[in-house]
Amino acid sequence: MNKDIFVKLLQQRQYKAVRSILDVMNEVDIASLLSELDDKELALAFRLIPKDKAAEVFANMDSSMQTYLVEIFSEKELKELLDDLYMDDTVDLLEELPANLVNRILDTVSTSDRALINQLLNYPEDSAGSIMTTEYVDIRENMTVAQSMAHIKETGIHKETIYTCYVTDRRRLIGIVSAKDLMTTDDDVLIKDLMETEIISVKTHTDKEEVAKLFTKYDFLAIPVLDTDGLMVGIVTFDDAMDVMVEEATEDITKMAAINPSEKTYFETSVFAHAKNRIPWLLILMFTSIITGTIITKYENAFAAIPLLVSFIPMLMDTGGNCGSQSSTLIIRGLALSQVRFKDIFRVIFKEFRISLIVGAVLALTNGIRIMIQYDNAGLALVIALSLIGTVIVAKMVGCILPLLASKIHLDPAIMASPLITTLVDIFSILIYFNIATMLFNL
Amino acid sequence: MNKDIFVKLLQQRQYKAVRSILDVMNEVDIASLLSELDDKELALAFRLIPKDKAAEVFANMDSSMQTYLVEIFSEKELKELLDDLYMDDTVDLLEELPANLVNRILDTVSTSDRALINQLLNYPEDSAGSIMTTEYVDIRENMTVAQSMAHIKETGIHKETIYTCYVTDRRRLIGIVSAKDLMTTDDDVLIKDLMETEIISVKTHTDKEEVAKLFTKYDFLAIPVLDTDGLMVGIVTFDDAMDVMVEEATEDITKMAAINPSEKTYFETSVFAHAKNRIPWLLILMFTSIITGTIITKYENAFAAIPLLVSFIPMLMDTGGNCGSQSSTLIIRGLALSQVRFKDIFRVIFKEFRISLIVGAVLALTNGIRIMIQYDNAGLALVIALSLIGTVIVAKMVGCILPLLASKIHLDPAIMASPLITTLVDIFSILIYFNIATMLFNL
Repeated sequence: MNKDIFVKLLQQRQYKAVRSILDVMNEVDIASLLSELDDKELALAFRLIPKDKAAEVFANMDSSMQTYLVEIFSEKELKELLDDLYMDDTVDLLEELPANLVNRILDTVSTSDRALINQLLNYPEDSAGSIMTTEYVDIRENMTVAQSMAHIKETGIHKETIYTCYVTDRRRLIGIVSAKDLMTTDDDVLIKDLMETEIISVKTHTDKEEVAKLFTKYDFLAIPVLDTDGLMVGIVTFDDAMDVMVEEATEDITKMAAINPSEKTYFETSVFAHAKNRIPWLLILMFTSIITGTIITKYENAFAAIPLLVSFIPMLMDTGGNCGSQSSTLIIRGLALSQVRFKDIFRVIFKEFRISLIVGAVLALTNGIRIMIQYDNAGLALVIALSLIGTVIVAKMVGCILPLLASKIHLDPAIMASPLITTLVDIFSILIYFNIATMLFNL
Repeated sequence: MNKDIFVKLLQQRQYKAVRSILDVMNEVDIASLLSELDDKELALAFRLIPKDKAAEVFANMDSSMQTYLVEIFSEKELKELLDDLYMDDTVDLLEELPANLVNRILDTVSTSDRALINQLLNYPEDSAGSIMTTEYVDIRENMTVAQSMAHIKETGIHKETIYTCYVTDRRRLIGIVSAKDLMTTDDDVLIKDLMETEIISVKTHTDKEEVAKLFTKYDFLAIPVLDTDGLMVGIVTFDDAMDVMVEEATEDITKMAAINPSEKTYFETSVFAHAKNRIPWLLILMFTSIITGTIITKYENAFAAIPLLVSFIPMLMDTGGNCGSQSSTLIIRGLALSQVRFKDIFRVIFKEFRISLIVGAVLALTNGIRIMIQYDNAGLALVIALSLIGTVIVAKMVGCILPLLASKIHLDPAIMASPLITTLVDIFSILIYFNIATMLFNL
């Protein structure tokens, strides 16, 4: 939908046409169209959305638009919206709203919903409890397929997903039946003869990244969430798990570039916040690299005698850094996808060692030939070739060991990524280089 | 399930117990248990899996296990397996098998399936066509809800998903009905009055990354795939889209560390293949950093006069590299998530410029103070502080502009990541540093 046409229709009060457009549009697309409107147009357009879509559109809006709408809504409009919002979206909304609006919402909902909301708001930020919803289809084992279908028909419209039905007995989860099973099984079959009893579930305090991993592994549509007493309290649906996966990948990538992660997008983050997220690691790395500089000064005599030696410093440092970050990146990603584990450390070291021999040999040979051609100096070629091999080996060892050690002591391996490894490897490459040079050239 | 117990039961021919265990286990877990067995145990255990789970377990195995099983299967076993495998899993299997086994499979399936398989195998590797399946629920607009439900009951068991039903008219897709709509709507309602007609679909040649993005955006369970004539040919399901998302994130992360991506996991990739994936970029970057070295030799007089100058080279190079990769990483991720676009280039540049002023000032001040304390040399402190500010600004500019330019000319922005930017920024930081030093110290 073209924004300009839509705004023109709004301004000309062609409400019927606007309603027809909103009627055929997807909720996600409506939310994105509305995000381009100014406040007044937004309020007007939102009120023209068909009632059965309004809550879903609202859930897809960003928090500033949501805040604005909650502010201007009448008591009645707010109540209607809250009735239609799923519990996880309500909680997401409350987490973003200023305190006065939170109170307004808590005053609007029923006492039982208020208690539930408070409970959900109390789960730790990165837990399954914080992303779960409490609306799920709940059936009994002595129901038939037909009775279950009738139950879904009656209540299902208000559930976030009806495709996985939970068989409970006094809030204890005893089985799972998929809608596919219900739809393809005869009416008089009993749920207890149809249900799966081997259930994979998570706890309210399970880390949401772990939850997302279960979705990728098992291709679930939803996963049940149990409280500490083992009673069923909600479900996490696949769409929320997908969002978590994307967020976690972004967080890892950000950390790997020595930036403190932010939950906001690039443009949503202010200049000051960007600077604040980037400065700490830069300072740490800057002061670490001073060590490298200090080491260089110790070899002042070497490069005073052969000034050409200085010109190879960038090449050795960069190569070392790149080799180290190649290894650390692959290991960090392997750890994130559970393809590499701490117990594999010796396999990894052996593998990286063999890789570094090949890589080191190729780089040393190429560069040795280059130096022979350019300077016709066999001694120099040998120094650089040996330094390269040594640097590559050390870089790959440091690069693969550090993330594994971090995972062992429950640090996020992602912070052991390129920048830190580059800085550490610098120290080694300079030491290797000047020691070899001093020895071979008798400096 | 404990592997040792399972193997012991197999060896003791306690087949009934083994069958009971396999009966309650999840297909994904069975596949992972089987992956720990040797070939003979694998063949035995696979044949004990309940028939309704066997195909799903098979689809979750890695290709070496699949190849082995296809090799030893009887004609009848192979036929049974192929009948139960979804078309996308069959195609995945064929892509991994050696030629003689591919022929064996093509001889086993029906003529119509063979034609279909050949067509699916012909779609480009990264296209929607290559990950779609052809089994979906197909209904007509003049059917009632009850008729549709009866149709699903009859045919649904063989469909990969029945939760989105496709309304077609002579293979043309005219509407979509969700199973939720069917299950919560009265029996005599006509599909044409229930179906959504605003349909989001992809083409067979749409890039699978684009397909995955649509899933994240719209929270679909499945998306229809149309051929070039606009006729419906299949669907992509959310589980395949999730796999694509994880793969693409891995690919980006790998590229950002200057490694040619591999489809295999860390341990599946051989030492030689690892080396081959890492060497090309290392060579390119190594030779680029020689430029930096050559520039340094031009300032031989400077560091001959003040040898201390050399010791600041690593700090400036590392800081420049880190600043540049911070910016490039955020922009590359923003581009991947469509949160940043090429048209935002001036907004990005302005933002990064302001960030670099803050970051540069903080780093310059901290380091200036350090140098004053350590060397009590105001001139040196000034040179380093100014060089740091200059380097940070240039690094952040290069870091944000290069990925945006890459996206503009349809190169993958991920290759513009840290390593390349580090090497480029090195050149600038050395030039800035020695020029400022030469000027201020009159060298």
